[in-house]
Amino acid sequence: MAQTTAEPVLVLTTGGTIDKQYFDATSDYQIADSFVPRLLATARVTHAFECRELLHKDSLDLTDADRQLIAAQVRACGYSRVVITHGTDTMTQTAKALAGIEGKTVVLTGALAPARFNETDASFNLGMAFAAAQVAPPGVYIAMNGTVFAGDRVVKDATRKQFVGLP
Amino acid sequence: MAQTTAEPVLVLTTGGTIDKQYFDATSDYQIADSFVPRLLATARVTHAFECRELLHKDSLDLTDADRQLIAAQVRACGYSRVVITHGTDTMTQTAKALAGIEGKTVVLTGALAPARFNETDASFNLGMAFAAAQVAPPGVYIAMNGTVFAGDRVVKDATRKQFVGLP
Amino acid sequence: MAQTTAEPVLVLTTGGTIDKQYFDATSDYQIADSFVPRLLATARVTHAFECRELLHKDSLDLTDADRQLIAAQVRACGYSRVVITHGTDTMTQTAKALAGIEGKTVVLTGALAPARFNETDASFNLGMAFAAAQVAPPGVYIAMNGTVFAGDRVVKDATRKQFVGLP
Amino acid sequence: MAQTTAEPVLVLTTGGTIDKQYFDATSDYQIADSFVPRLLATARVTHAFECRELLHKDSLDLTDADRQLIAAQVRACGYSRVVITHGTDTMTQTAKALAGIEGKTVVLTGALAPARFNETDASFNLGMAFAAAQVAPPGVYIAMNGTVFAGDRVVKDATRKQFVGLP
Repeated sequence: MAQTTAEPVLVLTTGGTIDKQYFDATSDYQIADSFVPRLLATARVTHAFECRELLHKDSLDLTDADRQLIAAQVRACGYSRVVITHGTDTMTQTAKALAGIEGKTVVLTGALAPARFNETDASFNLGMAFAAAQVAPPGVYIAMNGTVFAGDRVVKDATRKQFVGLP
Repeated sequence: MAQTTAEPVLVLTTGGTIDKQYFDATSDYQIADSFVPRLLATARVTHAFECRELLHKDSLDLTDADRQLIAAQVRACGYSRVVITHGTDTMTQTAKALAGIEGKTVVLTGALAPARFNETDASFNLGMAFAAAQVAPPGVYIAMNGTVFAGDRVVKDATRKQFVGLP
Repeated sequence: MAQTTAEPVLVLTTGGTIDKQYFDATSDYQIADSFVPRLLATARVTHAFECRELLHKDSLDLTDADRQLIAAQVRACGYSRVVITHGTDTMTQTAKALAGIEGKTVVLTGALAPARFNETDASFNLGMAFAAAQVAPPGVYIAMNGTVFAGDRVVKDATRKQFVGLP
Repeated sequence: MAQTTAEPVLVLTTGGTIDKQYFDATSDYQIADSFVPRLLATARVTHAFECRELLHKDSLDLTDADRQLIAAQVRACGYSRVVITHGTDTMTQTAKALAGIEGKTVVLTGALAPARFNETDASFNLGMAFAAAQVAPPGVYIAMNGTVFAGDRVVKDATRKQFVGLP
């Protein structure tokens, strides 16, 4: 039987490529105000959700303290459905830091090309995470490259720039 | 525990707004070759999938025979994870025609604005469907407006142009 | 010697494919509020200009009275640099109706694909028209398909859907 | 009288923000294969042109030798209509290096946001340059921010990130 939920979704943004903007000033890419709210508006999302911009960091710059902050937010929030947007380089590390939180479905996602690009995986990935957060049983997941992975059985293959599931 | 699958996904395209192109010739929109394969490529999907362009119809033009064709394809295919892209006007009707197919997770989705538009819900919706097809238990679902609905408990509110879940 | 002008530009919008939006309500394309102001903002135009939304019509629906209205606006306005966005099907007809206006550079342009599409000629064409209005001597021009045509020496080839210059 | 030309246009690409791509590998932007041919295809340009990818450099990295190379190409080419895409930071410097080439209309342009972005001035600017190259008398021009500037009477205001004409 099709089992679904109307429970609201918490979206935590932490930065990463998905939110990168190009700044002519410095001729550099930097993490800007999150583009995630705009992606959700463009997707005409009417499902109840709250979006919190928690951090604006490249995931290589995330510290243990940052990961504890993210985990504390997930644990303390009243939501049982959580989406986290995150840089891809250390996404699996944050997934590990979230293990052991009971009774919540937590889905990490991000993008390999900035959401502000014409050709980006951002919307698709956010859609995957939003759906998985509603449908998957409690646990930690990573939604990237078209797959919903168990959070502890996936690695990012740096050479091919894609996430690969472990057996 | 996070339970996920590496099973391949069948994507059936049937037309609808998601695939609408604008043709200057006739100063008219028409349903074109499906844009879905390009959306999946842009999303850098590496998950195994097959895409079949089954129909190219506005969903208001789908007949009972078309719905039987779709159901027959779903039933006969070797896949247990199926995504169907479909016009929004009669999506719930097709969902009903698919009820009773055992052992398969079938997710219908589409778009309220053409995928070829700058601002479209197409990628997000396709991502939702792709994830739900992997994660949800067998049954028929509709993924639209940020929600994964049970296929038999949702209507399209024509006035507000959005899908609304039934209690 | 490079001769340029800082004179302001009047932009008159009259409708056409460039402004077509897709309306799910009617499953139809219709001419919406002009997208031209947004194109100019995205292009970071700081050159002085005024934009007037004069008509919202498919160019096949333009009447002689409409063309007289357009010509009257061009004649009466204080500007000597005028850009007109227009449907492509009768653009050459409107160009003829504008012939004989002295001392003004008038450039018609439009788009073969709606400006709201991911892949559209709208921005490029508007850029061409904006530049030609500043640089070309008084007269009537059509800027389409990468060419600035003299307004009375160009036809739209309906079969190939492109503008072709006459010798 | 409307005076136009069917003479072909040479497009020289030299790099700059217009061609910047984001590379996840290095979490860095770099200048990629030029996006200019794709912009011209999307604009459905049927006007005769040749595109040469001459350099792939941030304009801050252009040397005197690079500028001599660009000038030599312009001088030696058989074309009298030339568009040069170029980084914005030293565009005015290259314009100076091109002064004194007789009988050719040379228009420099570029973009303040990468052409691969959803919201970019690239197409509009390229359209301006393409039109100005056809319509303007011989000389060197810069087409940016909606204005066709004389190449020797414009500066880039680094603070406001826009080109400003000199009196």
